[in-house]
Amino acid sequence: MKKIINDPSAVVDEMVKGLVFAYDGLVEQLPDTNVVHRKADKNGKVGLVSGGGSGHEPSHAGFVGKGMLSAAVCGEVFTSPTPDQILEAIKASDEGQGVFLVIKNYSGDVMNFEMAKDLADMEDIKVEYVVVDDDIAVEDSTYTAGRRGIAGTVLVHKILGAAAEEGASLEELKALGDKVVSSLKSIGLALSPATNPEVGKPGFEIGADEIEFGVGIHGEPGYRREKLQPSASLAEELVTQLKKEFNWQSGDSFALLINGMGATPLMEQFVFTNDVHHLLQKEELDLAFKKVGDYMTSIDMEGISLTLLKIADSKWLDYLNAPVTTIAW
Amino acid sequence: MKKIINDPSAVVDEMVKGLVFAYDGLVEQLPDTNVVHRKADKNGKVGLVSGGGSGHEPSHAGFVGKGMLSAAVCGEVFTSPTPDQILEAIKASDEGQGVFLVIKNYSGDVMNFEMAKDLADMEDIKVEYVVVDDDIAVEDSTYTAGRRGIAGTVLVHKILGAAAEEGASLEELKALGDKVVSSLKSIGLALSPATNPEVGKPGFEIGADEIEFGVGIHGEPGYRREKLQPSASLAEELVTQLKKEFNWQSGDSFALLINGMGATPLMEQFVFTNDVHHLLQKEELDLAFKKVGDYMTSIDMEGISLTLLKIADSKWLDYLNAPVTTIAW
Repeated sequence: MKKIINDPSAVVDEMVKGLVFAYDGLVEQLPDTNVVHRKADKNGKVGLVSGGGSGHEPSHAGFVGKGMLSAAVCGEVFTSPTPDQILEAIKASDEGQGVFLVIKNYSGDVMNFEMAKDLADMEDIKVEYVVVDDDIAVEDSTYTAGRRGIAGTVLVHKILGAAAEEGASLEELKALGDKVVSSLKSIGLALSPATNPEVGKPGFEIGADEIEFGVGIHGEPGYRREKLQPSASLAEELVTQLKKEFNWQSGDSFALLINGMGATPLMEQFVFTNDVHHLLQKEELDLAFKKVGDYMTSIDMEGISLTLLKIADSKWLDYLNAPVTTIAW
Repeated sequence: MKKIINDPSAVVDEMVKGLVFAYDGLVEQLPDTNVVHRKADKNGKVGLVSGGGSGHEPSHAGFVGKGMLSAAVCGEVFTSPTPDQILEAIKASDEGQGVFLVIKNYSGDVMNFEMAKDLADMEDIKVEYVVVDDDIAVEDSTYTAGRRGIAGTVLVHKILGAAAEEGASLEELKALGDKVVSSLKSIGLALSPATNPEVGKPGFEIGADEIEFGVGIHGEPGYRREKLQPSASLAEELVTQLKKEFNWQSGDSFALLINGMGATPLMEQFVFTNDVHHLLQKEELDLAFKKVGDYMTSIDMEGISLTLLKIADSKWLDYLNAPVTTIAW
């Protein structure tokens, strides 16, 4: 394992400290936690909290700031944060109107965030949540019942963050969150596995000439291995899978997110984007919002994911385009 | 070579098309070139143009937009763009007040940008330029006489971009650019080489347990190889080298940029940031501006660089903090 780290078991603590130091005008670390909390003035609105295992940087701490998350809870690498840490994030983010949680669909996250909700209830903090399950690759997986939550989660952060900033109530955020998640689909592929520093070896084996479709952001198995092929073929496979799910019509409006997995150069991400463009152009979709880069990574995995969000309400585009003050949006 | 590409010789063309498609609200491609030009309204100010070989994404096209570059010229991978392409960028960026060029110190870039300046002179466009040579690792190198230009270049883009936006003249930009470059020092290290897709194999060999200090952003040799060591030791070596150059005093004010080389996860970048923080804290420096992430990459190299800019004028901090509309700042 060749990494720029110190003690592998201290990676998350040191990473959070480094991030908070680098962006100390924007975020703060809650004492005795790995919760990254926004420094912006209290605004009396609903708080928005997300998080999960670390290793997906810039998710989620990179999206803490005005117009997006109030706080992000950073668990150990690929490990759900504990309910007490989530509770601290909730308490720091409550300004009297309650707190909304965005949870990726992993059993540990769902359990721990729900427990934190129960703990918050006991402290009279109203909490609602949405579980993001945008990954269409497989049903049920190593750490998941149902579908996994992956890069599309960042679009949920953005839309709900803008709505919260605008003053949406907890109930309105719940209705909006449910609707956005039901319109959100993603699918990825990997060229190489991630190496969790605490484990010290790659999460899976794959041939030098192989790629795997549908790999999860913790290296969970995908749905098919094939020989390495041109970007245009990879794009075609992913677009075909998404088309089956959406059953779209010419003229339908979508937001597009192309996401690098951590060790995929922007060069490759933009080549792939160009291929996706050609395919979606043929489908005559209206790509009303687009973004490309590393948003939901898997440490140092080489791979890419493609997310489409069907725009059911033009207000969603306003939310996607609203200005934010974050590290990584 | 395992990459998400199509024809290796078409990587730059396809990448530029993908980038311009993804951010078509912000940038446009000049016809028959790989020049990425900002779409913002003409403002009658000095234009700011940079560029160089591709493979350093998001540099430089990711910094095109209001408040930073007017245009970026994307050469072939690790190859200087041709004078005629640079000229097109200059022509598109001139709004009557002339155009300022930010050139990284590689012999090919310096030659071709100077030729483009001469061509622009013949068309009565006033052009000035600055050559960035922030890399303190070595004197003279594979493609360079003197010192190489690396990640610090992005801070030059930002400061000059803000000054141009504020209405600085060509002469004022020249004076400012020279002063900023003379206050700017960087140094990097690599854990693994980059693979140029047109070459198809890694740019150099390095042992599984080795790192190299001072490697250039095209894989040019550094100044020493050592066994892999903890992040804190790596940080200490780089900080020590910078300290020798700056000869700083307690209380001196600096901007800090920690830059990933393309395949270095943010997790590692922030762990390293935490180590740099501790070292610079002992030096009692005032770190008045900080930024961490992938700004000047070397395709898929694993590595990191550390840049410090001594703040000679508090106005520079205003320029660094001024809002921009770009893909990647």
